[in-house]
Amino acid sequence: MKFLTKWIVFLLVAVTAVVCVIAAAPPSRPADEPAAAIDAGRLPPGYRDWRLISVAREEGDLDDIRAVLGNDAAIKAYREGSTSSYPDGAIVARVAWSFDASDENNKTFGRRQSFVAGHPKNGVQFMVKDSKKYASTGGWKYAQFDDGKPLTNAAQLQSCFECHKAVKDRDFVFTRYAQ
Amino acid sequence: MKFLTKWIVFLLVAVTAVVCVIAAAPPSRPADEPAAAIDAGRLPPGYRDWRLISVAREEGDLDDIRAVLGNDAAIKAYREGSTSSYPDGAIVARVAWSFDASDENNKTFGRRQSFVAGHPKNGVQFMVKDSKKYASTGGWKYAQFDDGKPLTNAAQLQSCFECHKAVKDRDFVFTRYAQ
Repeated sequence: MKFLTKWIVFLLVAVTAVVCVIAAAPPSRPADEPAAAIDAGRLPPGYRDWRLISVAREEGDLDDIRAVLGNDAAIKAYREGSTSSYPDGAIVARVAWSFDASDENNKTFGRRQSFVAGHPKNGVQFMVKDSKKYASTGGWKYAQFDDGKPLTNAAQLQSCFECHKAVKDRDFVFTRYAQ
Repeated sequence: MKFLTKWIVFLLVAVTAVVCVIAAAPPSRPADEPAAAIDAGRLPPGYRDWRLISVAREEGDLDDIRAVLGNDAAIKAYREGSTSSYPDGAIVARVAWSFDASDENNKTFGRRQSFVAGHPKNGVQFMVKDSKKYASTGGWKYAQFDDGKPLTNAAQLQSCFECHKAVKDRDFVFTRYAQ
């Protein structure tokens, strides 16, 4: 009976452990699925849910207002100050919209001062870190989607890297975290 | 022995269920904790992790670039198009930063066109939906934190509501979701 009791206890612990590991497994996709989607020429599901890194306004030909979002690995690196070298798996996304004067807001403020995000503009861009796979472009893949379709012009994508070389000391990432 | 086997199986199932329920309980705070924190005059932990609703630029005295974030209830309402009446528990946050010309970006672009988020500016503002508790101000509590400290001037807070009346048909929320 003593043996049986020990056996019961062992069984309880073992089964509980196994079932809990299964139950606790996150229902979400593997962390590298967004990278795989981008690689396959698809907008990664869920990128619009990523946390905010910062915002910006571009005048000139771009003429947009934009937000830069990061997946968990990117946000973690920013918050830890590891911006001289992002870990493999980090992805930074840039979304942008038309820069629209808001008549509604201006009326309320009583003066012309307010500009809001209008329609999506200038595509959605990504930087995906994989230091080995993308070693020839500083460890990052550059991708752009226009109306959900991937930009395939190699020269244009290469031009991303050429510009980002200006901030090589921040691992080629321009955007700083907005506190 | 048959009884014992049944007993073992029952025990296994029961213990596994109980342990799993405990293990699966989310480690995060209850959903209403941010509202409680704001009510108690504290910046709610984690609001900076909320998902992005939209971005905007205010000229004039405000002179900032800003992001509007929403907690899960707010984001759900936006995405479902329930913007004529947000559910109790919805919270909208407005963060803002100085609107800084980026010499670094401009140098790379070869022209003066780029403005980025600088230092935090104009405080952090919240709208907290509780249709009963805040019935006298359209079902929303308006709160502002400057350097983490709550604004307590009742007249100033009331002025938030006065302006937001302009968009009563959108449940007093100005910001539209940026697709």
